[in-house]
Formats: sequence, structure tokens, C-alpha cells
Amino acid sequence: MTYAFPVVPRYAEIDQQGVVFNGHYLTWFDEAFTGFLDHVGLPYPDLIASGYDVMVVHSELDYGGSVRWRDAARVEVACERQGTTSFTLGFSVYRSADEVAVSGRNVYVVLATDTWTKTPIPPRLAEALAGV
Amino acid sequence: MTYAFPVVPRYAEIDQQGVVFNGHYLTWFDEAFTGFLDHVGLPYPDLIASGYDVMVVHSELDYGGSVRWRDAARVEVACERQGTTSFTLGFSVYRSADEVAVSGRNVYVVLATDTWTKTPIPPRLAEALAGV
Amino acid sequence: MTYAFPVVPRYAEIDQQGVVFNGHYLTWFDEAFTGFLDHVGLPYPDLIASGYDVMVVHSELDYGGSVRWRDAARVEVACERQGTTSFTLGFSVYRSADEVAVSGRNVYVVLATDTWTKTPIPPRLAEALAGV
Amino acid sequence: MTYAFPVVPRYAEIDQQGVVFNGHYLTWFDEAFTGFLDHVGLPYPDLIASGYDVMVVHSELDYGGSVRWRDAARVEVACERQGTTSFTLGFSVYRSADEVAVSGRNVYVVLATDTWTKTPIPPRLAEALAGV
Repeated sequence: MTYAFPVVPRYAEIDQQGVVFNGHYLTWFDEAFTGFLDHVGLPYPDLIASGYDVMVVHSELDYGGSVRWRDAARVEVACERQGTTSFTLGFSVYRSADEVAVSGRNVYVVLATDTWTKTPIPPRLAEALAGV
Repeated sequence: MTYAFPVVPRYAEIDQQGVVFNGHYLTWFDEAFTGFLDHVGLPYPDLIASGYDVMVVHSELDYGGSVRWRDAARVEVACERQGTTSFTLGFSVYRSADEVAVSGRNVYVVLATDTWTKTPIPPRLAEALAGV
Repeated sequence: MTYAFPVVPRYAEIDQQGVVFNGHYLTWFDEAFTGFLDHVGLPYPDLIASGYDVMVVHSELDYGGSVRWRDAARVEVACERQGTTSFTLGFSVYRSADEVAVSGRNVYVVLATDTWTKTPIPPRLAEALAGV
Repeated sequence: MTYAFPVVPRYAEIDQQGVVFNGHYLTWFDEAFTGFLDHVGLPYPDLIASGYDVMVVHSELDYGGSVRWRDAARVEVACERQGTTSFTLGFSVYRSADEVAVSGRNVYVVLATDTWTKTPIPPRLAEALAGV
């Protein structure tokens, strides 16, 4: 089941065309990922404490519409692909209950924090990713 | 010939891992595009005044490395594709004279400001794009 | 009674010293003010629709401590002064239940949206301010 | 003599009222301070390497006007006060050659990086501050 992260668009994020400036969506993706980890009971600091970190190696965004100030926005998170040492999360930014404004994805690589080299996705994270 | 936009990484853009947070690169791409328009003698306000605007519909970023505080960074701009009503600019973020940290691209659609519908790339912009 | 606005510090707001970069607190103050207006039943768009806007003319911040990533932060809002056409809101940024990290204030001037000149604080806003 | 730091207002910094959002001015102050240290031949990393760091403990801003996109802005830096272990820099944000839009100040405390306690302003910094 998809995880949904609620976002209140900040006034400071709105540009003079009245829409969220595109770079902020990557901030939202990042916060949604952190929220997802909390949601599945694997908070980011715990992940790191257990010897793993993740690094974003690729991002994509498609701007089909715009989020505006006062929109009740949310970012839905889904796992699009799970490999051995990497995974792809898809993010759908809704500007209302059923209207997607922006969609995108981040490709994450899992690193071992002792060697900072690629390492297989740890079981608890793999399980959490399988659920979204 | 590629256009190069110099960037001084701001302290506020550096995260606690000591590297530029990924969302800021889209801000740099945007500033580099504005700088490019100035460079070719077609400043953004003049473009709009002449009845055209551009809208980013797609972005991609590949993070091969990191930009850090005090790096002498620059964003090189190249036109990767020029269609009828859209074009793609490639951006290479250098963290030093010859080391690319991040590369990406934006797909832009040209709009007529009277109807806000797609319209062919105006000649002066097409010519400028052909030069990079 | 003080109004409290919860804030999840964003990873992108944390600098390489591991603390929230100071400029972001003004963004938090702005969001806390918007949240306060919602809380008292006078959402910002309604305020504007009724012919009034507010403009910040002065800000002050005292950094007694730092907010870090994963802190359960909140911004408490209190009205420090209510004049005829202006008012001062005090903001206390808590980094935990009872520890204030940063305190500050914004001075707001009320404008009539037809003339964009100073005008007395409208009654509903004055009443709301008297309550915090 | 005052030091002037040139600023190109970024499109992402402009809010939907068409002006720079207030929190960004503190980012500009920070960059202007870094630029000032470079200008006087005491780059921030050198300052730290020599055993000193500075911490902002107080900020103030007065918004007398607005900076807009495409303004040729600059931040002028002047030392308003030099004490034993702290100093105050004044920042004047010009939106054109002779029009100040925003003025403010930061109070800095000097810390010894071995004990992270207050320490007298080191001679080279004191001399540089005396010059602006």
C-alpha cells in the first residue's frame, strides 16, 4: 500500500508565477522518504546506526501541473524497483485529493557505513520496500 | 560553444554531509539558463516581452559526485535537442576545472504568452540554442 | 494562550555544522503566522479577500541554541504588542518540549488592499491577536 | 571603506508577490560575510584553520523596500561595533546603485576552536573589521 506524506506548501516555496519552484520538489521527495522510513518503523538514524546509509544517484521529475499555495498537497511513495544494492522510489505529488501535479523518482544505492561501498539492501528495508 | 555559468556554492546549500543538497542543483540549472539567455543577448524579460515564455516539463539529474563549500563550481549549458516547440538543455555541474560532479537536463516547452499554448521556438532563441 | 506550530526540521535546512541555517527560521516564523491565522479561523486568503494584507517591516532573531535534524521542534506564537496599524508577534522556537533554541519577533503593518496604505488592524484580527 | 558583495537575485528566491522572500536576506548576509573575509585576505577556512570560528548570536532586519528579480543588487558590509570577543556587522541591501531596500545586522561572537568558548577577536580579523 502506498505511503502518503502530507505537505503544506510553504509561502517561501512559491515563485512569482504562483507555483512551487521545481527544485523544492526534490526536498519534498527527501522528506517523504524520511517520513516513509519512520512510517515503517525504520527511522533514518536507526538505519545508519545499523551500519547502512543510502545515497541518491539519479532523480527524474515530470511536471504535469503545478502545486500552489494553500493546496492540500501530499507526496505518495511507491517502490518501483528493488534490485540487489539499489532501489527506485516513485513519488507522486498530489495537489488535491485526486490530482497529480508532479511525478518523479529517485534511484538510491545502499552503502555500508564502514566501507562506504555498495552493499545489499538490508532485510528490514527490503521488506518495507516490498510493502509499498 | 558551451556556455559556462559560474556558481559560488552557498553555505546554506550545504547539508550536514558536507555536500550541496540535491534540490539546489535545479536552482542552479534555472540560474544557468537565465545566464545563458543574457549571454546570447536575449534576456528572459525580453523573451517574455516578445510574446514567448518557456516552461520546464521534465528534469533529470545524475549525481556522480558532490559539490562542496568553497568549490569553484560552474554549470555548463549545452543544447541536447531542438524540436519544433520544445528543446532540451543539458547541464554539467563542475566542481573543479575538469571534474563533473552532477549532470542533468531540463526539457522546455515554448508557450505563446497570449494563448499559453505551445508554439514554435522563436527564431532568435532557435539560433542561440543552435550555438551551444 | 500561546499558539504552537509544529515543525519537522527538513534535512535540506541543516547545514554542515549540523544545525538549522539561520535564514530558515524566518521561513518558520512565516509558516507559524499562517498557521496561527488558520487556527483562529481567519485564514490568510480570507484576510486578503476582506481587504487587508500585512507586511513584515522588521525582524529580530536571538540564537541561544540550535535546532537539529530529527528534533521535535515547534514555534510558539505570542502577540507582544498591538498598536493601531501595526503589531508585533514574538516567536519562540523550541527544540524539545521545554527548551527554547531561538527566539525572535516580526513587526507587521496592516495595509488596505485597495490603497496599499496603512490601515487600522481589522477587528477580527485584533481580537485574535489579543488572545495570544 | 565599505565592502560591497554583488548579488544576482535568484528566481527561486522571489515569492508570489514578486519580491525576495525575507529569509533569503540572511543567506545573502552570510555570503556577504564570507565574501568580505575573502576580500580582506582571511578566507573563512583559513580563519578556522588558525583556531577561530565565529557564531551569529543575533540578527536584525529592517525591510524598507523590496528587491525584485533582475535587480542589480549588492550587499554592503560595514563594521558597526567591535568589542573584545564580539563584533557587529551592518548589511545594506541595495536594489539599485543608490537605493537601499533592506538593512540589517548580525552580531558575531568569536570562539576558540579548541575549547569552543569565547575568545578575543584575533588581530588579523580585528584589523580587517577596523577597515570597513
